[in-house]
Amino acid sequence: MCGIVGVYGHPEAANITYLGLHALQHRGQEAAGIVTSDGDRFHQVKRVGLVGDAFSRGALAELPGHLSIGHVRYSTSGDSSLRNAQPFAVEYAHGSVAVAHNGNLVNAAELRRKLEIDGSIFQSTTDSEVIVHLLARAREPDIETRIVNALRSVDGAYSLVFLAESKLIAVRDPNGFRPLLLGRLRDSFIFASETCAFDLIEAEFIREVEPGEVVVVDSKGLRSFKPWPEASRRFCVFEHVYFARPDSHIDGRSVYRVRELLGRKLAEEHPVDADVVIPVPDSGTPAAIGYARQSGIPYDFGLIRSHYIGRTFIEPQQSIRHFGVKLKLNAVKEVLHGKRVIIVDDSIVRGTTSRKIVKMIRAAGAREVHVRISSPPTTHPCYYGIDTPTRSELIASSHSPEEIARYVTCDSLAYLSRDGMMKAVSLCGAPEIGKALPGAHYCDACFTGNYPIEFKPGTISSLKRIVN
Amino acid sequence: MCGIVGVYGHPEAANITYLGLHALQHRGQEAAGIVTSDGDRFHQVKRVGLVGDAFSRGALAELPGHLSIGHVRYSTSGDSSLRNAQPFAVEYAHGSVAVAHNGNLVNAAELRRKLEIDGSIFQSTTDSEVIVHLLARAREPDIETRIVNALRSVDGAYSLVFLAESKLIAVRDPNGFRPLLLGRLRDSFIFASETCAFDLIEAEFIREVEPGEVVVVDSKGLRSFKPWPEASRRFCVFEHVYFARPDSHIDGRSVYRVRELLGRKLAEEHPVDADVVIPVPDSGTPAAIGYARQSGIPYDFGLIRSHYIGRTFIEPQQSIRHFGVKLKLNAVKEVLHGKRVIIVDDSIVRGTTSRKIVKMIRAAGAREVHVRISSPPTTHPCYYGIDTPTRSELIASSHSPEEIARYVTCDSLAYLSRDGMMKAVSLCGAPEIGKALPGAHYCDACFTGNYPIEFKPGTISSLKRIVN
Amino acid sequence: MCGIVGVYGHPEAANITYLGLHALQHRGQEAAGIVTSDGDRFHQVKRVGLVGDAFSRGALAELPGHLSIGHVRYSTSGDSSLRNAQPFAVEYAHGSVAVAHNGNLVNAAELRRKLEIDGSIFQSTTDSEVIVHLLARAREPDIETRIVNALRSVDGAYSLVFLAESKLIAVRDPNGFRPLLLGRLRDSFIFASETCAFDLIEAEFIREVEPGEVVVVDSKGLRSFKPWPEASRRFCVFEHVYFARPDSHIDGRSVYRVRELLGRKLAEEHPVDADVVIPVPDSGTPAAIGYARQSGIPYDFGLIRSHYIGRTFIEPQQSIRHFGVKLKLNAVKEVLHGKRVIIVDDSIVRGTTSRKIVKMIRAAGAREVHVRISSPPTTHPCYYGIDTPTRSELIASSHSPEEIARYVTCDSLAYLSRDGMMKAVSLCGAPEIGKALPGAHYCDACFTGNYPIEFKPGTISSLKRIVN
Amino acid sequence: MCGIVGVYGHPEAANITYLGLHALQHRGQEAAGIVTSDGDRFHQVKRVGLVGDAFSRGALAELPGHLSIGHVRYSTSGDSSLRNAQPFAVEYAHGSVAVAHNGNLVNAAELRRKLEIDGSIFQSTTDSEVIVHLLARAREPDIETRIVNALRSVDGAYSLVFLAESKLIAVRDPNGFRPLLLGRLRDSFIFASETCAFDLIEAEFIREVEPGEVVVVDSKGLRSFKPWPEASRRFCVFEHVYFARPDSHIDGRSVYRVRELLGRKLAEEHPVDADVVIPVPDSGTPAAIGYARQSGIPYDFGLIRSHYIGRTFIEPQQSIRHFGVKLKLNAVKEVLHGKRVIIVDDSIVRGTTSRKIVKMIRAAGAREVHVRISSPPTTHPCYYGIDTPTRSELIASSHSPEEIARYVTCDSLAYLSRDGMMKAVSLCGAPEIGKALPGAHYCDACFTGNYPIEFKPGTISSLKRIVN
Repeated sequence: MCGIVGVYGHPEAANITYLGLHALQHRGQEAAGIVTSDGDRFHQVKRVGLVGDAFSRGALAELPGHLSIGHVRYSTSGDSSLRNAQPFAVEYAHGSVAVAHNGNLVNAAELRRKLEIDGSIFQSTTDSEVIVHLLARAREPDIETRIVNALRSVDGAYSLVFLAESKLIAVRDPNGFRPLLLGRLRDSFIFASETCAFDLIEAEFIREVEPGEVVVVDSKGLRSFKPWPEASRRFCVFEHVYFARPDSHIDGRSVYRVRELLGRKLAEEHPVDADVVIPVPDSGTPAAIGYARQSGIPYDFGLIRSHYIGRTFIEPQQSIRHFGVKLKLNAVKEVLHGKRVIIVDDSIVRGTTSRKIVKMIRAAGAREVHVRISSPPTTHPCYYGIDTPTRSELIASSHSPEEIARYVTCDSLAYLSRDGMMKAVSLCGAPEIGKALPGAHYCDACFTGNYPIEFKPGTISSLKRIVN
Repeated sequence: MCGIVGVYGHPEAANITYLGLHALQHRGQEAAGIVTSDGDRFHQVKRVGLVGDAFSRGALAELPGHLSIGHVRYSTSGDSSLRNAQPFAVEYAHGSVAVAHNGNLVNAAELRRKLEIDGSIFQSTTDSEVIVHLLARAREPDIETRIVNALRSVDGAYSLVFLAESKLIAVRDPNGFRPLLLGRLRDSFIFASETCAFDLIEAEFIREVEPGEVVVVDSKGLRSFKPWPEASRRFCVFEHVYFARPDSHIDGRSVYRVRELLGRKLAEEHPVDADVVIPVPDSGTPAAIGYARQSGIPYDFGLIRSHYIGRTFIEPQQSIRHFGVKLKLNAVKEVLHGKRVIIVDDSIVRGTTSRKIVKMIRAAGAREVHVRISSPPTTHPCYYGIDTPTRSELIASSHSPEEIARYVTCDSLAYLSRDGMMKAVSLCGAPEIGKALPGAHYCDACFTGNYPIEFKPGTISSLKRIVN
Repeated sequence: MCGIVGVYGHPEAANITYLGLHALQHRGQEAAGIVTSDGDRFHQVKRVGLVGDAFSRGALAELPGHLSIGHVRYSTSGDSSLRNAQPFAVEYAHGSVAVAHNGNLVNAAELRRKLEIDGSIFQSTTDSEVIVHLLARAREPDIETRIVNALRSVDGAYSLVFLAESKLIAVRDPNGFRPLLLGRLRDSFIFASETCAFDLIEAEFIREVEPGEVVVVDSKGLRSFKPWPEASRRFCVFEHVYFARPDSHIDGRSVYRVRELLGRKLAEEHPVDADVVIPVPDSGTPAAIGYARQSGIPYDFGLIRSHYIGRTFIEPQQSIRHFGVKLKLNAVKEVLHGKRVIIVDDSIVRGTTSRKIVKMIRAAGAREVHVRISSPPTTHPCYYGIDTPTRSELIASSHSPEEIARYVTCDSLAYLSRDGMMKAVSLCGAPEIGKALPGAHYCDACFTGNYPIEFKPGTISSLKRIVN
Repeated sequence: MCGIVGVYGHPEAANITYLGLHALQHRGQEAAGIVTSDGDRFHQVKRVGLVGDAFSRGALAELPGHLSIGHVRYSTSGDSSLRNAQPFAVEYAHGSVAVAHNGNLVNAAELRRKLEIDGSIFQSTTDSEVIVHLLARAREPDIETRIVNALRSVDGAYSLVFLAESKLIAVRDPNGFRPLLLGRLRDSFIFASETCAFDLIEAEFIREVEPGEVVVVDSKGLRSFKPWPEASRRFCVFEHVYFARPDSHIDGRSVYRVRELLGRKLAEEHPVDADVVIPVPDSGTPAAIGYARQSGIPYDFGLIRSHYIGRTFIEPQQSIRHFGVKLKLNAVKEVLHGKRVIIVDDSIVRGTTSRKIVKMIRAAGAREVHVRISSPPTTHPCYYGIDTPTRSELIASSHSPEEIARYVTCDSLAYLSRDGMMKAVSLCGAPEIGKALPGAHYCDACFTGNYPIEFKPGTISSLKRIVN
């Protein structure tokens, strides 16, 4: 997963982008990059690591210009080395262009092979670079048409911001898998993956970039068109369940409110007699609050989260693996001792983390441990931008909830149903902030295996022959 | 403030110390260090930065030995450069010795001047180094006696672990300002500032090192004595209010439970008609839960905390100051919009953060904002190890709660009374984990100005004449 | 200028390449790189800086394989950043290929524009990358044919080594501007820019790669062909005068012997009554010895060279510019005091260094200072790989020797004539080491302006629009 | 061996010191350091590595003040880590003091033990730190008296510069083992180990600091006294033979002229019928020129030295050991092929380098190889500051010249006699530059074993118990 930002018309475009990326840090912690345009030349800084570490004051000073795009990366395609960091900025026949991509292309390997046969040389092992090469080969006179035609051959999930010398272009794929939002900061236009980025920079949220929409911002202002045939909306429901920040509004909904409703539905579907409801912090917190309210069982903080470790789900390398979740979470004995405990989490991937948490809660003296998951069983991998493991590693792809309960050593375990999840999502809508889209449909392939876009095997990374 | 760890008798003493320091990371983020003894020679690694960054796998591999001490540092005396990192390890006439110190000596400047007149040369600008020089001048044959005599001339707060070639010695000052606990991991003895370190390494908590106690561990086992005259116990109440981790047990009490009780007392003393209780996360969370329970007003998560920024209170340098608390916290509009909000925090230092939080909550649409603080007004600086600013910077030293309310722009603001705080602390006690000490008394100088030990002006850092 | 190495069939190909590059370090100090092939995948390490600094033991350990090419770079085209370091290794439709280039292409900007119009995306700002893109677009089935056809459109100076998965190909342009030599180390074939690389690795020198020759080494052994029309040989005479290491044999000649003969000719053409002949070390040393022998005037060491500063000519950045040559050279008063001194150097570029040296010699007490230059006046820039400044900066392009003498404040100044230079070069020949080519002709454009290949204005670096 | 610089009264004292250290770089390449005083506070920068690498422009900017001392280090005592870098700057009862030391103390271990028993804590493992601790314990009111009394207990070789807040003090031990010279740059006084430092900064050489002299410079100007009993002069003859730079004047003599005379004497004592005289560059060059002149045999350059490797003698770590001298030197076949060669070097330590050189010359086709050494056999280690290996490693301590000749595989080998060496040194004298001291005597312990000061076994480094 990744986060993207675009800024048009701000004298400190790089600083605004930097702050936006900081707010989107949860969407990718492997690498961060910013490319600015001073109207003539591009300036770029890309680094492996967190935004705060990647950009020193000095680095930001080397990024002049009124236009800027930025990217935080978590590797869904290609390894985590610097050469795969985005935005990709290149020189080509038409000048310079840079792109930042959130999503995943499902026909990238095929396209890459074709482009290489025609003489293209790739710099990275990511799917996103394909877009740049298609663009370099397009011969239309203006960049927006080149982008539109280049993207015609691309399948998959893509929210994109493009930077040209004096133009910013934002694009969202026709299914609208990944979020992309438009905001305004005085005279500047801002694009970002989530509204929490607008909040930090004190920009006003205007609206979603719509699925299939191309938004162009230049000296003539903002204009928009929809060049591709209409497709059914397929927003990623897992953004609501887990990925997005709870203070964000995406898809016309408050992520926090959706999660609280998921918790309420979960309590309705799977009640249990218990003394305390505790979240797996921080991702399980809103659902746990919802569960507690619906059930009337007191909410408490039974697991303390260390501030010095990132999300388990998102860290590709862990130095002291056998300590795992213990480095991040610790049980509060006072809250748990002698109690019947309901623990609420958003999802179960391999089951190993849940197992460790249950054992930690029992070791703290809990009498019973009931696991409640605020989404259906995760049975299928995502090919549209979230780095879930292969099917065989997903415990729910081959085990029933009862078997999983036995593995994680809890007294009971229950998942929210698909219907319950969809009801919670559609119940929610924040008219004062963003209108709930009436015909909204979701991609729930990770729970159902219903993939809106076909995926052919053979990944780009298998092409990698140069090691460095 | 600092955190310390000592390990005796573990084949991977450095790894255990590393994990313990990780659990104590909240006690100091400026520098981290470990010194081990292989029975003959010392090995040390010290770095500026977080524990996880400071110790690579390679660094840990260079720390052989069965004995180890470690330190995480936040500068209360001396600047944050590497030469002030601890433990201090030195060679002297009796061999090698290392020390890690949590606390602050109030007569360090005076002692340093005396030692320099007698020919001592200091390497750092910290108060802690004084202890090492006193030790180097002691002529008693065994190290524990040298330590005891060296500490006779020292006034202030000190929890200490000393490392000799084949001995570990833990010491706590007669007033017991700072915590120091004894645990056991199979055949090894472990010392640590808080029980959360024991939890991570799966050590069993045995007991507090008592005020004025010297605990010696060597090949003959563990023995203990109290060489100094009995003094009144003066445990730092601010450890309960803010500093310690809520999952820790110190002072015979669960920090989490103390904080929840502080919140309950606060609700009793300062009720207000409102729609929702929200914490300033994470330090205000247990008190907010207590306030919500006592008052019956729903608890909710109205502020989301970024995982990528450390505690405001503890960070000496901030790169983008004007964004301040916004980089760390964001309001959840859904929770706050149109509501009368009670916001619970542990303390107010300068008032600037509270002001920004109140404004953020109002901007999210709150109708009323009521600030509740789970401790009395912070009116006096701490000279015993917590890095509070000077009196003139503490807003409560010169302003009434009403004036502070006006400054932070809230509708009402109230502090817990000193009596309420003390009642909450004494009500709490966890017999199954650590016996509540009956005659326990506290240092509450930061709230009252009643300093148990006199402090003479003239800081050590003023002696610093070499810049590097 | 640059130096290149290629190794086929050695179990430690990277180490051999590393040593070869170390021996060629004088040909480029900005960046160093090695790419190896293990028969299937490529492995690369490239760094800014000297060979010894760029390759740690660890870096070499990451370069497995029996085939390897390497490069030391001094920027003649493109800036000195890492992305311009060579070899260039890329993946393309036919697998992987890497190239290392010594020389300069004169139609690179034009070719790059054409390639970009056809959709190619460049990674660097060097002329050498053009070759890789031409190769990527070639559709011939075997790599040697692709290389031959790709090079058909290229004009200029190029000595090249190419690496494919299991093939090494060495190419020299039809004019043979830059050296490229073939050697053997037991069962391995080695290519290198100068024989000093063979000496260090104890390889046997076999022969020159001939102008216009393509040499292919693979599992079937070594074969060679000349695919392009015969052209007149134009070996760079300045390699003899200054650039190559004096212990090398290139062009069938001993560089040392050529320089000594240049000194002898200089003494014949421009004698002067004096007490001592001293070189500007180290490049002027052989010519000074020749001058001294021919003239009978004693040779001595009047200038000491610091071992801790590189060649003035070749360093693009100098931190303390006003000290200039003083950081590198110092006068030996004992040798110079009261003497009439002849100082022998290889060439004069801007005149500023000569002026400082003359002043230094006078300050040491010399009675007279006579400057003798072992080549003709440098009046024209080189477009074939040596980074001479623009014409307007070359003092001899606009000033007579008398005017230059006045500027450098010497008593007399004389250059070797073009005829004298050519006689010295052709007199020399070491039949036992490499046969002097009978019809050998030279490029002397820097002395005459007779450019063998036309150069069109408009440099590649002017295209650079992305700054990083 | 080490090099030292002191500057009093220059607005850019750090820059002047930096340049002086650059000129003295040959005296130590392990670490470099500068300490300045702005009249009140000290500022220091110390780094492992060469002067040019250690001091960036930024580092120099952090060194304000009109007084400065500097040091380049090669480890004769203590390891090469940063904590052993000099100058040592400390705070003590009298303020701040820093010292830079060239030489070696023979009773340092004994003194350190005594100081530690009295409570001193050492930071480094060098002999030089003893001086600082003696100084910290001295109670005399003014620093020069404290220095004099502290040095009373010290035995061995020491040229020292001390820095106090507003005073510079230079001291040379009563025997005057190591050089120390006084110069002037306009209104500033400069101290340096060799005159080549004065040349670079364009300071005027005034005179030697005399053996046993203490020179004090402060706002009242320069004054000097000799507080200790007169001792016989014992200047290190090996400074003339090898260590000092040939363009320096030390000991009232031109190093270059001494070396040339050593070569002439060598030719007188050990003539041989041959075709060419070649030096081992660069240290053998002046003696080879002398030998050639005296013998009438032509001088030539048969060995080329790489500019990218330091002196063999002085490098403690070599990454690719088996290539050894080949990385540094290469033979010029044209000069050597078919010739009878005399190769002149300054000394033989282990014999391994000489053996490799002889083999290299034979491989280049020499018919005969005659080795001539411009000093007597090196039979004893130096305890006064030059890092010669132990006796058992010195080939001449246990083998006759004939045996060494056989080992290095040359046709003949001869050393200059001790008498010849002394005659050459005393013949030389440059009245116009520095008066030859009439009663001058030398330390030639490395050739004779006659140690002017007794050395007790037991080194300081054996005390090292803390590894980092």
